[in-house]
Amino acid sequence: MTYFRPDINAMSGYVPGEQPPPGTQVIKLNTNENPYPPSPEALKVLRELEGELLRRYPDPMAGAFREAASQVLGVPADWILVGNGSDDILTMIIRACCGPGRGVVYPMPTYVLYRTLTQIQGAEFVEVPYQEDYTLPVEQLIEAQGAVTFVASPNSPSGTVASVEQLKELATQISGVLAIDEAYVDFAETDALEVAKKYDNVIILRTLSKGYSLAGLRLGFGVANPALLEGLIKVKDSYNVDAVACAVGAAAIADQHHKNINAQKIKASRTQMADSLKQLGFHVLPSQANFLLAQYPGGNAEFLYKSLKERGILVRYFNQSRLTDKLRITVGTPEQNEALIKLLSEILTGEISKSVSPTRS
Amino acid sequence: MTYFRPDINAMSGYVPGEQPPPGTQVIKLNTNENPYPPSPEALKVLRELEGELLRRYPDPMAGAFREAASQVLGVPADWILVGNGSDDILTMIIRACCGPGRGVVYPMPTYVLYRTLTQIQGAEFVEVPYQEDYTLPVEQLIEAQGAVTFVASPNSPSGTVASVEQLKELATQISGVLAIDEAYVDFAETDALEVAKKYDNVIILRTLSKGYSLAGLRLGFGVANPALLEGLIKVKDSYNVDAVACAVGAAAIADQHHKNINAQKIKASRTQMADSLKQLGFHVLPSQANFLLAQYPGGNAEFLYKSLKERGILVRYFNQSRLTDKLRITVGTPEQNEALIKLLSEILTGEISKSVSPTRS
Repeated sequence: MTYFRPDINAMSGYVPGEQPPPGTQVIKLNTNENPYPPSPEALKVLRELEGELLRRYPDPMAGAFREAASQVLGVPADWILVGNGSDDILTMIIRACCGPGRGVVYPMPTYVLYRTLTQIQGAEFVEVPYQEDYTLPVEQLIEAQGAVTFVASPNSPSGTVASVEQLKELATQISGVLAIDEAYVDFAETDALEVAKKYDNVIILRTLSKGYSLAGLRLGFGVANPALLEGLIKVKDSYNVDAVACAVGAAAIADQHHKNINAQKIKASRTQMADSLKQLGFHVLPSQANFLLAQYPGGNAEFLYKSLKERGILVRYFNQSRLTDKLRITVGTPEQNEALIKLLSEILTGEISKSVSPTRS
Repeated sequence: MTYFRPDINAMSGYVPGEQPPPGTQVIKLNTNENPYPPSPEALKVLRELEGELLRRYPDPMAGAFREAASQVLGVPADWILVGNGSDDILTMIIRACCGPGRGVVYPMPTYVLYRTLTQIQGAEFVEVPYQEDYTLPVEQLIEAQGAVTFVASPNSPSGTVASVEQLKELATQISGVLAIDEAYVDFAETDALEVAKKYDNVIILRTLSKGYSLAGLRLGFGVANPALLEGLIKVKDSYNVDAVACAVGAAAIADQHHKNINAQKIKASRTQMADSLKQLGFHVLPSQANFLLAQYPGGNAEFLYKSLKERGILVRYFNQSRLTDKLRITVGTPEQNEALIKLLSEILTGEISKSVSPTRS
């Protein structure tokens, strides 16, 4: 259509993982939701919300959440920028910093949205391959000198983390912004908050979607020095965070105990699931996220994905370089994980016919 | 800061109207919120929301709201695009359609955000003055041939509407997109839905912030043919509308009775407030929105704004061309409106000293 910019006509939109309607009988291990419910404290706030809070415009800076996050993270409130999910913060970074001649750099494979947002902005992107074991290709990322460099840590879909030393080296050697996407940090043994505290070109991204079981609420945030946030605030939608998300999110992040208990359970299940997958013959990368990237040597991952889906288990298959022989599997409850392993075992041992009916989805 | 695009460094961000924290003792007539509570049906949905809805990612297209809006408007669901407030839809339109060489056109004065979003996108803008009585300058808008032309109807801050005939002429004479911003349509005697139904380059924008008393929920939508929406969906954030807004908004828009009753009350108050302002010597434009643009001949609108604010009543003052002698006043409850008129009268008759202390805010 001639109404759109040529860039937009040329691109395809980002396709999120399948979201079957609530109530669908399916074991959903495809979009890295937390299998446990959100904090009861947060749900209490939701149920007791006054209509008056909805009648009025929300606080443009989501102050109540900022204050709560400030307490938890030990950084001043004005170091925190709240978004409609952390995707909203990604968008602000790219809109404020990038354009023709001001490109985006990131290692691959990683979160596909970095590319999509760069295309929407009409900026160039440089995709640097991760090393085979998903070590961060620091030298090549530095060479590319992006206006913005994205590093997801833990990375999706690999589950691997970048070391603080590597991130510090990147921060000091690039002239642009380093955005460290810590969406999955609540399941990791390390974080890079100190890097954002130390370097004025670094922003850390966090979300309540994974660790806090609040993907449906849309709440994420960035942590960076106020001078960096100032430019992002200029491109922020005035009222990007609604009053419900602000109030419920503040209660959720304050309830660290609930989050930590669930993260512990998920990490224990992750170990168990990795062991079971290895027993089935999969290669599994060590993961610090709430998912595993599992490769079946010589196998057809798309066939496995479809076979699982046919029988009511959704996992994630990426039809892209380095990933066509792998599945990204969210760690669910022990019961969900057992059902997955049992079904995978049946498919692999041929107990289930290899003929996949494409119409039964 | 060199981290940002030069455009971003050069611009100032959009400054929304003041949002005093909840609980502040103030009569808030500055940002056009509805003075009456949201639908009880919508609040019931809010209170009964399951945590499971928050745990999972929301429907990327907000299907439940789409269906409800489809019923109310009598257009197919795939003609409806849901946003995190209608500002989100404005952003999608500009990101999908505009850039260098693909400019934005709108009459002035109008919603300031059109300019801000255009600047963020690095596109040119042409601002065509409204005629003195706020008749739409159709010819000049056509001449400017924007990639996007915005017309707010009812317009803010004037409260005036464009006729369907004028909008049809615009739609047929421009090669780009015509976006008709109907944020205030629930208080008007006319709407332009038929223009969007008829012309494939037209999108209508609506919001639940005003008519439905849900400014804090962030929910707006666009109505256009699916081919036009397709390009906008490419630049849409994947999960732009949270699960709470989708569910609560669906219940709110289905409750037309509640919305209509409140709109009737506000329209009656609007007439009364206009009469009272005229008795005080103001010139008041005929308004089809939930606010009035009031000019005190020879008066200093900034002084009035500050005097009112000092004494606990917030109205909107715009320090820009054609508006420095005017106040935009939201229609509140009868009690709020009476308090405003009483205080204005006291200020104008000099019963209150003209010395405005700048520190007492």
